[in-house]
Amino acid sequence: MGVIAQVEPIAAEELRQVARFRVALRLFERQTDRVLARCGLTPQRYLLLLVIEAQSIGGAASVTSLARELGMSQSTVSDLVSRAYGVGLLERRRADTDGRVSHLSLTPEGRRRLQAAVDGLRDERGDLRETLIGLSRLV
Amino acid sequence: MGVIAQVEPIAAEELRQVARFRVALRLFERQTDRVLARCGLTPQRYLLLLVIEAQSIGGAASVTSLARELGMSQSTVSDLVSRAYGVGLLERRRADTDGRVSHLSLTPEGRRRLQAAVDGLRDERGDLRETLIGLSRLV
Repeated sequence: MGVIAQVEPIAAEELRQVARFRVALRLFERQTDRVLARCGLTPQRYLLLLVIEAQSIGGAASVTSLARELGMSQSTVSDLVSRAYGVGLLERRRADTDGRVSHLSLTPEGRRRLQAAVDGLRDERGDLRETLIGLSRLV
Repeated sequence: MGVIAQVEPIAAEELRQVARFRVALRLFERQTDRVLARCGLTPQRYLLLLVIEAQSIGGAASVTSLARELGMSQSTVSDLVSRAYGVGLLERRRADTDGRVSHLSLTPEGRRRLQAAVDGLRDERGDLRETLIGLSRLV
């Protein structure tokens, strides 16, 4: 008896759910770009400021800790940090324990933009979350 | 008494949650790009094939119905459709009811690639969904 390579057809319901998910994700990304532009941020810089601020809560952010969290190389993060520093969104301060390490934090302007973005995207995050929760067949 | 413009500080817990969400979303996008590249699709073409296939279930997909679903102009969709048609992923068939309208469907090759992508991204969708469900303070 010959073996026929069977390809499982995509179940109609799963397909509909995945389509709905991708459409919602695209809408979310478009709205995110719009809100971030209004706040003077790109998606990449928003992510950078967000992770620096989150790591600073009860700890310290450095190029090394950011590279680990973001899954980027140290040189990529270093470059992103330098540019955000250059436009006045970040501060660098030598670590007390190791003079070779700089601890990063947001300037008041960096914090103002981050906060505007986090606030401005609250509804969009909620909508995306609700859509995903509703899609029971995604997995 | 003067009125001071108060800016609500971002609650630490919300900030951590939003950071986790954006990191998860970035990871999802990177994995998506990788899986789609393996399937011979771009994110935009994946979305196009997905929505055409979903609309074809118990209905018909046309440039008009796609433009509505995707929130794109008819000319943008028309261009995407033409290019996917040009590389053999789509079929066009004149609607019986209106000769000016073409109904779109996937070729076997288009369906094969879509299915590989939907299957290949199942775990990633599940992970993203779980992350979002876990983030109670996002809204």
